[in-house]
Amino acid sequence: MTFRYANRADLPAIVALLADDEKGKTREEFTDPLPDAYYAAFDAMESQSTEALPNKYLLAMSGDDVVGCLQLTLIAGLSRRGQLRAQIEGVRVSSKVRGQKIGEKLIEQSISVSKSLGAHLVQFTTDKTRKDAHRFYERLGFVASHEGMKMTLD
Amino acid sequence: MTFRYANRADLPAIVALLADDEKGKTREEFTDPLPDAYYAAFDAMESQSTEALPNKYLLAMSGDDVVGCLQLTLIAGLSRRGQLRAQIEGVRVSSKVRGQKIGEKLIEQSISVSKSLGAHLVQFTTDKTRKDAHRFYERLGFVASHEGMKMTLD
Repeated sequence: MTFRYANRADLPAIVALLADDEKGKTREEFTDPLPDAYYAAFDAMESQSTEALPNKYLLAMSGDDVVGCLQLTLIAGLSRRGQLRAQIEGVRVSSKVRGQKIGEKLIEQSISVSKSLGAHLVQFTTDKTRKDAHRFYERLGFVASHEGMKMTLD
Repeated sequence: MTFRYANRADLPAIVALLADDEKGKTREEFTDPLPDAYYAAFDAMESQSTEALPNKYLLAMSGDDVVGCLQLTLIAGLSRRGQLRAQIEGVRVSSKVRGQKIGEKLIEQSISVSKSLGAHLVQFTTDKTRKDAHRFYERLGFVASHEGMKMTLD
């Protein structure tokens, strides 16, 4: 397995993964062609990415196939003595390759990239109903120390 | 009270607020002059800010005094049909002006700015030990739907 950042041509494969999920199947719209909103969002991510502080999708590749993905966002901030944080979102592994520790390797790769960019903290939120996911992340060393609060604006 | 984005000259006032807090008092280093790390972090925030997608501190001002602050970060992403998110961090109100609903007004201002920039979701994490904060945010309409997971890399 190899890892690389996503480019625009990977969008259909990424949205397919995002939609292949209990929550994602109602939240996403995986059509051919993809809704323009996904391309606009990709361009917005690129517009706020720098080499030092990316906001990009990291892909797990098996040959030419995208078998896993996560969004990795480096966020500069003042708190904790100006500590750089890495934030993860949209973690998915193809249902075709479950049980091969691809999720674990992808998270480890994101931690490794975050360290190399100077981050001292990796964070994300996960829906409280995803109990299996919590056990998975706790095994990898994450601590559920915070409440993740959300407000939809629609 | 007025609101504006912070500039470099506001850093001592912001770090004073970050440090005037149960968690912050051990995490921050409010000295004169400030540690360079805060200035470097401010410059990093500026480097990843665009007009459309800021990563900036929003300040509540009483005349020339900074009486409250929060970090507001707009994060483009693919999930939820390419939904733009706003993220809050480092919310503080000066202990000199508690009870004047400054925290509430500052959060409302951040929501208003987020909406105007096209965000459909506002999110943040708050330490599970901050029970009073949770009630405050739930009153404002936030839902503690997620686990906030963290891993320190040091």
